[in-house]
Amino acid sequence: MQKCPVIIAIHYTSYGAQWRDLLAERLTNCEIRLWPDWGDLAEIDYAVAWTPPDGLLRQCENLKAVFSIGAGVDQLLADPDYPRNVPLIRMTDDILAEGMAEYVTLAVLTLHRDLLRYLDFQRTADWQPLPQRYPKDHKVGIMGFGKLGQAAALALKPFGFEISGWSRTPKQLAGVESFAGLEQLPDFLAPLDFLVVLLPLTDDTQGMVNADLLSSLPRGASVINAARGGLIDIETLKPLIDGGALGHLWLDVHHVEPLPADHWTWAHPNVVVTPHIAAATLPRTASNLVADGILQMEAGQMPANVVEFDKGY
Amino acid sequence: MQKCPVIIAIHYTSYGAQWRDLLAERLTNCEIRLWPDWGDLAEIDYAVAWTPPDGLLRQCENLKAVFSIGAGVDQLLADPDYPRNVPLIRMTDDILAEGMAEYVTLAVLTLHRDLLRYLDFQRTADWQPLPQRYPKDHKVGIMGFGKLGQAAALALKPFGFEISGWSRTPKQLAGVESFAGLEQLPDFLAPLDFLVVLLPLTDDTQGMVNADLLSSLPRGASVINAARGGLIDIETLKPLIDGGALGHLWLDVHHVEPLPADHWTWAHPNVVVTPHIAAATLPRTASNLVADGILQMEAGQMPANVVEFDKGY
Repeated sequence: MQKCPVIIAIHYTSYGAQWRDLLAERLTNCEIRLWPDWGDLAEIDYAVAWTPPDGLLRQCENLKAVFSIGAGVDQLLADPDYPRNVPLIRMTDDILAEGMAEYVTLAVLTLHRDLLRYLDFQRTADWQPLPQRYPKDHKVGIMGFGKLGQAAALALKPFGFEISGWSRTPKQLAGVESFAGLEQLPDFLAPLDFLVVLLPLTDDTQGMVNADLLSSLPRGASVINAARGGLIDIETLKPLIDGGALGHLWLDVHHVEPLPADHWTWAHPNVVVTPHIAAATLPRTASNLVADGILQMEAGQMPANVVEFDKGY
Repeated sequence: MQKCPVIIAIHYTSYGAQWRDLLAERLTNCEIRLWPDWGDLAEIDYAVAWTPPDGLLRQCENLKAVFSIGAGVDQLLADPDYPRNVPLIRMTDDILAEGMAEYVTLAVLTLHRDLLRYLDFQRTADWQPLPQRYPKDHKVGIMGFGKLGQAAALALKPFGFEISGWSRTPKQLAGVESFAGLEQLPDFLAPLDFLVVLLPLTDDTQGMVNADLLSSLPRGASVINAARGGLIDIETLKPLIDGGALGHLWLDVHHVEPLPADHWTWAHPNVVVTPHIAAATLPRTASNLVADGILQMEAGQMPANVVEFDKGY
């Protein structure tokens, strides 16, 4: 193998250092450069990136590929100078799908079994059994039905929930009702108790989950967003949650991150806020996928999961 | 159909009344009599029972069948005068096992993914991502490995947790390490992050989960009890949870129910208290099974789930 300089454009120091050490173990012929010690960018063959400075990747004029360390790539494509002539590879570590399946199951079961109300009752030592709901009483719809959405569906299905999926193009998953395209969205939403948002963030989906769209949900339905904050037009949802049209909003991702301390979602009794923790990329496993991809390219092959720039994912 | 008097021998007034109303909807030709308005017991065709007074069912000398509203029938067979010449039908317990599997999964995922800490952070608008733990980092042990315990294991297994079970006599479940008998208890407990208690309450298990037993757990392990309050010697656990030897105590069942408002468990920051709601027999669905059984018998057929008295279940 030739010398293949790799830059790690991840601006979390200790996290980036983990990536550097793990990649160095696998890519013994590569020189790994960690943010911000880029050196001469024209020497860089591969970039392993989350949110590099705008324009940085364009300056890597001999780049062979960019590897995103997250499932989404919207944060890279937001750079107006992003080099769209270079293959961009999405992270598809199974561990992301597992983390997401866990997080979505936790959110759905918490709402389904009224855990938030019981935790409230506990604060006043209030012994108040509520009527138990069965999974058959609660329909779950997953909007965005790719790898993560299907993993969430497969995790929830054994509990007996009725599950449906919606995506831009038709997807098939055994035992799950599938909807596709904008014209089927109202039918998808109409029977749901829980809407789980796992869409990619693209020009088409930006702000898509707004009051207008959610007017197709039954009164009291809850929305769980574990994908990207930009999918939700959050200010349009405040009247819905205030007025009870929405039961709960469960938000792992937010229009600004970190979420400003004075934003109303933090303090709302029917909103759960978590700090973008649904499914973190684990360097130990993810670095192996990146190393595999670099070795494949050095051997003249194209890795799987190359982003289609016109679709945005 | 002939007139078929049914007595409901369930001594919880509003709960019994729900059963009466639901059965009356289905059994329009039957007269439903609710505890303690038995009337002439010789007129009774069917009994729907949990813990009737000893001798009551023997006095129903023309009884065609008894329906237990619980999965177990030991509370009925404990009556020395129980009429063993009459078919006894037990409640199919799939719904109980499903509810238990849901509840245990919810409790384990909540602790595994630090949801209680994130809910605390939310109260002060504190954006604080914690290191994500993976299922391989957390071992779950289920103490009491019958139908409910195995259902909980099967629900947790797809998430990737390492799971073990302990029971009095050896049980086998694919992919789960099984321990049996008192001498194997320390080995069962030693590696656990989460101990789920689903034992039956017997003379042998009363107060079994005490400080002495839990000293075999690693420091910081959590205990989830969703079976019977009497299994735990709760006062011996206070120093353990106060001192951090135990991480969390998650209690659905309690030494006294309803749990008195001044009991320390309600107010402890590392104790979750829910009001015995893990898996209830719900009249809405269970009454349909009983009504189906009565209609089958009136049509000359024997329902499923007839107890074999020599086996006791």
